[in-house]
Amino acid sequence: MPRLLVIGGSDAGISSSLRARELDPSFDVTMVVADRYPNFSICGIPYFISGETPDWRDLAHRTREEIDATGIELLLDTRATAIEPSERTVELMDARGTTEMVPYDRLVIGTGAVPIRPDIAGIELEGVHLLHTMDDTFALNDRLADAEAAVIVGGGYIGLEMADALSQREMAVTVLEQLPSVMTTVDPEMGELVGRELRTHGVEVRTSATVRRITQEGRALQVAGDGFDAVTADAVLIAVSVRPDTALAASAGAELGVRGAIVVDRGMRTGIANILAAGDCVETWHRMLQRPTYMPLGTTAHKQGRIAGENAVGGDRVFAGSLGTQVVKVFDLAVARTGLRTAEAAEAGHDPLTVETEGWDHKVYYPGATKMTVRTTGDRRDGRLLGAQIVGHRNGQVAKRIDIAAAALYSEMRVEELSDVDLSYTPPFSSPWDPLQVGAQAWAQAAASGSGSEVSTALR
Amino acid sequence: MPRLLVIGGSDAGISSSLRARELDPSFDVTMVVADRYPNFSICGIPYFISGETPDWRDLAHRTREEIDATGIELLLDTRATAIEPSERTVELMDARGTTEMVPYDRLVIGTGAVPIRPDIAGIELEGVHLLHTMDDTFALNDRLADAEAAVIVGGGYIGLEMADALSQREMAVTVLEQLPSVMTTVDPEMGELVGRELRTHGVEVRTSATVRRITQEGRALQVAGDGFDAVTADAVLIAVSVRPDTALAASAGAELGVRGAIVVDRGMRTGIANILAAGDCVETWHRMLQRPTYMPLGTTAHKQGRIAGENAVGGDRVFAGSLGTQVVKVFDLAVARTGLRTAEAAEAGHDPLTVETEGWDHKVYYPGATKMTVRTTGDRRDGRLLGAQIVGHRNGQVAKRIDIAAAALYSEMRVEELSDVDLSYTPPFSSPWDPLQVGAQAWAQAAASGSGSEVSTALR
Repeated sequence: MPRLLVIGGSDAGISSSLRARELDPSFDVTMVVADRYPNFSICGIPYFISGETPDWRDLAHRTREEIDATGIELLLDTRATAIEPSERTVELMDARGTTEMVPYDRLVIGTGAVPIRPDIAGIELEGVHLLHTMDDTFALNDRLADAEAAVIVGGGYIGLEMADALSQREMAVTVLEQLPSVMTTVDPEMGELVGRELRTHGVEVRTSATVRRITQEGRALQVAGDGFDAVTADAVLIAVSVRPDTALAASAGAELGVRGAIVVDRGMRTGIANILAAGDCVETWHRMLQRPTYMPLGTTAHKQGRIAGENAVGGDRVFAGSLGTQVVKVFDLAVARTGLRTAEAAEAGHDPLTVETEGWDHKVYYPGATKMTVRTTGDRRDGRLLGAQIVGHRNGQVAKRIDIAAAALYSEMRVEELSDVDLSYTPPFSSPWDPLQVGAQAWAQAAASGSGSEVSTALR
Repeated sequence: MPRLLVIGGSDAGISSSLRARELDPSFDVTMVVADRYPNFSICGIPYFISGETPDWRDLAHRTREEIDATGIELLLDTRATAIEPSERTVELMDARGTTEMVPYDRLVIGTGAVPIRPDIAGIELEGVHLLHTMDDTFALNDRLADAEAAVIVGGGYIGLEMADALSQREMAVTVLEQLPSVMTTVDPEMGELVGRELRTHGVEVRTSATVRRITQEGRALQVAGDGFDAVTADAVLIAVSVRPDTALAASAGAELGVRGAIVVDRGMRTGIANILAAGDCVETWHRMLQRPTYMPLGTTAHKQGRIAGENAVGGDRVFAGSLGTQVVKVFDLAVARTGLRTAEAAEAGHDPLTVETEGWDHKVYYPGATKMTVRTTGDRRDGRLLGAQIVGHRNGQVAKRIDIAAAALYSEMRVEELSDVDLSYTPPFSSPWDPLQVGAQAWAQAAASGSGSEVSTALR
């Protein structure tokens, strides 16, 4: 029985294992998982911390029993310490430190990413946390048990989800962001809306704030640096960014590329025979940029993992590529983007124009209507849609609206075509023209009139 | 100053007027409106009747002042009674019966549709209502003031929206539908889910029920016929279907086509020089069937009206075509469809396969997750996506999920590509694989295994 060995138990690992089993049950599939928590949804950690998901066990995409039922073998608390491609073996080490050489016919590396430890003095102090594993999550949760104030270093999506979560525990939360606005995956105008939402919910937000050192005063921690007054807290969470975990792949001789991620082809194959890789440890092909990027996201990990699993057992599936689609909930806001923003588009050789519009999520005469801000980016030269950003209410179907734009980008639609698509309408859910279509029409008008970046307002 | 005369004050009329003004302010634009309610959202009538929209004035897409600000001239309580194309004049009659010949340079006909009066004895009785105009709405509302029980004849989307509305007034509601299931714009399996929702909320539903006669007993009305026991009620609403209102266009010599609707080209031009038409009175080009159909919907009316307005002032815009996208709220359900269903697809020469799956609207560990049922239809021969249907909770982003499928249909995506699109994900709003993508994957698997219609179940 040929063996597929999968290293990693998160999104990419489980997706490739499941797909391989589904397509070719003749393969023995063994998953090597560094801790005791295979197939956990790390995107769910903020909701365990907030208390919205009280039982951490619910964060598993599948229970142990469900995985066992698929016939996948799990090696928990086991680390892969080295790969020997010429022998087709992996060295595994269990919790007691015992090592063993295990043979494979195909190998999928899904080692994921690790949080970046920024150069901050005192980062090793008790009460300063980075989030990576479930054990990290439990450690933070313990620390928060009697904490009243927290500092979050980093105003990206994880930092802001955690600000939301800690506020729900009625903690005083300060977010420190090095750049001039939070949520820099969207335009500063949109980041401003997010910053306002944070402040509305009592979060202190300091932008252009560089953290230099953390010091201890009894149990309290003081966070200091440039551009902000020092803040005292009971806990500090560092959520700056992540980097691919590639030590194992490098040990096998795999080539590393963008931001140190493993180089793979669009079939998720490394350059080494019989070794594939997927998820947060690999480069991600960008469909619009037509080049590899580093884009550690759960959706991407699932897609790549599924392809790696299929190709590991003889398939020939190609990754369609990322569109850079993302959504995050911050208090009552949904913040979403897909495609390229002005600067990214210009860098890629486009002649971008971005137009901002407002629209209601549904007819304003039906109860509960909320406004959303839409930014539409297209190429002036050929009218092609390049990207969209939406900030709106969490109940405003913002996530699936950005997905309409994502589907349009996938097919290289022109901006005006977005307004031609026969979208659904009933007063409780939308308007005859969806806010995306109002945006597309305003964009077309601005492009035709040769104007620069433009702000239009909504119609009822 | 050239004059654009627009006959009709609803969606198609206002869209064409606004677009014409926007593109060419040198045109004088005059709208002829049969009643005093220009630019009213007739889709909003159920929410006025339910009480969710207490003030009927809010149903206007735009206020009188907003329309006046655009420079559009309104002739209210005015009917167009005849068109003389050779003279380029229209005969107008005001509320007092005074007629006048008014010249035009371009004419847009947007006379809409009228409810079909089925052949039911007693349909003319007091208390039996058809809904068309705002005055009809007020008459029904008056009748309902002290009514306790209502019968709705017709289980299509208007009938069911009204069943929802009247139940909110705590009335006893019976829906009588001639066909074997309600909501026949979706598959019977989906119609069954809708029927269950109606019953859960106390609505009596009788299918395969043909109404023959209505009789009066004091103030009460008795509704009788074949396939159901006679029902007594204080009010009867007939919501069977609509037909295009084409008497005026026919008087001008316009050709009539599918279901008696006005024949137009994809630029919304009738065969008569300088006369365009749009909305519920015209044939609608179906993008997938590549032939005209009759599809009276607000979204379509807005799109066609916009094109008619543009082409009336010298443009050359082409209607991209309908995909048959629709959504309706019935109590706590959203019921949505786009594209072709099995029978429609087979009739159009496809080799359709439909697969049913279930999925959660977002990660089940985050509070408030709800299940939805997805039916995915594709062509076995080339894998092309042909249609999708979703029934889910009203808070489950169902409307915008069907729109993702609509965007995919617009671009002639294959079913499997739907699973390749980089859609957004965060636990409060979705899953790493959207339910549409789970459906696409199940479809591909069923198609590959050569199976018939298939029902799969959801993953967490």
